[in-house]
Amino acid sequence: MMDRGLPGYFSEEGSAETVNARIGPGADARLAEVMAALVRHLHAFIKDVELTQAEWEQAIGFLTRTGQICDDTRQEYILLSDVLGASMLVDAINNRRPPGATENTVLGPFHVDGAPRYEMGADISLAGGGERCLFEGRVLDLDGNPVAGATLDVWCDNEDGFYDVQQPGVQPAFNNRGVFTTGADGRYWFHGIRPVSYPIPDDGPVGQLLGQLGRHPYRPAHMHFIVAAEGFETVVTHTFVARDAYLLSDAVFGVKQSLIANFVAAEGGEAQWRSEFDFVLVREGSP
Amino acid sequence: MMDRGLPGYFSEEGSAETVNARIGPGADARLAEVMAALVRHLHAFIKDVELTQAEWEQAIGFLTRTGQICDDTRQEYILLSDVLGASMLVDAINNRRPPGATENTVLGPFHVDGAPRYEMGADISLAGGGERCLFEGRVLDLDGNPVAGATLDVWCDNEDGFYDVQQPGVQPAFNNRGVFTTGADGRYWFHGIRPVSYPIPDDGPVGQLLGQLGRHPYRPAHMHFIVAAEGFETVVTHTFVARDAYLLSDAVFGVKQSLIANFVAAEGGEAQWRSEFDFVLVREGSP
Ligand SMILES: [Cu+2]
Ligand SMILES: [Fe+3]
Ligand SMILES: [Fe+3]
Repeated sequence: MMDRGLPGYFSEEGSAETVNARIGPGADARLAEVMAALVRHLHAFIKDVELTQAEWEQAIGFLTRTGQICDDTRQEYILLSDVLGASMLVDAINNRRPPGATENTVLGPFHVDGAPRYEMGADISLAGGGERCLFEGRVLDLDGNPVAGATLDVWCDNEDGFYDVQQPGVQPAFNNRGVFTTGADGRYWFHGIRPVSYPIPDDGPVGQLLGQLGRHPYRPAHMHFIVAAEGFETVVTHTFVARDAYLLSDAVFGVKQSLIANFVAAEGGEAQWRSEFDFVLVREGSP
Repeated sequence: MMDRGLPGYFSEEGSAETVNARIGPGADARLAEVMAALVRHLHAFIKDVELTQAEWEQAIGFLTRTGQICDDTRQEYILLSDVLGASMLVDAINNRRPPGATENTVLGPFHVDGAPRYEMGADISLAGGGERCLFEGRVLDLDGNPVAGATLDVWCDNEDGFYDVQQPGVQPAFNNRGVFTTGADGRYWFHGIRPVSYPIPDDGPVGQLLGQLGRHPYRPAHMHFIVAAEGFETVVTHTFVARDAYLLSDAVFGVKQSLIANFVAAEGGEAQWRSEFDFVLVREGSP
């Protein structure tokens, strides 16, 4: 009866092409590229699963609720990106490094600028509690040379699984946070507590989705690090506590095998645990 | 240094597989299928365009704003689905029909249950204004036989491009709406106004995106129809005014070539225009 494929008019077969043909000549080239790819993959997804009208309505409702729960302290869309592995994928694509270099992982929502600068050996746990731990190691370049003047910005949760910013008035400000700078030997060492696993906020649409997928909301215990040095690519990463029960099921897929750090029972001294981890930086502008 | 491909731990290459391997055995099979496909296409999209961290942040912000502008009368996520062609694609997949049958298009947000039932020949324009038009035609089965007892639920905008529900207090309730039932000859005819093109709401994030893509927010002029008859698949569709300037650039991709209806200058009588269109229904349960 009719030619359903005529350009410009909608057809199931040519759906993505019809949509993308509409992008005007004045559109930013990168935006046009990104949106055209998005439309192609979105349409391919809908076709692959033959999404029903009822499922489409559920999706619209889910996306709407996910936006509406967001406020100054809650970002449910980042959470959604996290649990779908999208945040880690974007991080991975934008931080490719040669073998031997320390890998990135996601920054997470709990970094705070302006943490106290400490001398090596200081204790970042201002509130006490938890199992005490000595963190130590070196900042090196790819050839194994120490990197002097590297800053390590570190933060972790308390023994109950909360960051200071989640418990204002309960935890002192900057509890379990600190900034350290390496000397000529590239070494760092500081005291704190052994981090514990904690759940991401799971009382919203994303938590509900996790439940429906038979997934839990926990992240394995980790210490956050931003390691930066003049002339080197900044590394945003965590070290993960070896043998944590959630290492293979991090709700946000943050674990890379190379980031698992041993936590060994300390002999004597004030620490119960000792965790050694070397950070290997890549020079800026290296291929 | 390390095997980045170990199952369970995140790697750029195996990102979607790692995410999908987490779906638990208790998850609903259809949800698992849909989400696994979504993750595969989402990750493929991110990899295709090598999405930057800044672009990811823009996307998070866009999705959040799109949710936050939604309220009882505004559904920006449906609008987003519409302008990306997703709404039409879902409609097409779920309403495939044999050649010769009237094609579906999107319902749109302005349908109202309980419009007045009129006798054939009635005038659905309660407010006057606009260019008067006679709508007529037949409801047929695929063999060309008339369908008796078919209801046609029809609605359109006024001469300023607004539906009655968009202008309560300005337009009378049920202006340009009505329900008609065919007799033994399958014929329908009613008076109304020639619809005009109108913009979708473009003062939110979706309108902004359209602008950035060099697209306009207009829909070509159309009359909405829901044609239903016992024993036949219900058709949700529009007829589009032939030669409308936006036929090839409908902001929501609703136009199928087979739905374009002639509007011809009427000779004598009370109508200025006459638009004839036959609806061809498919029996329920036909292959
Ligand atoms: Cu895809
Ligand atoms: Fe954390
Ligand atoms: Fe409409």
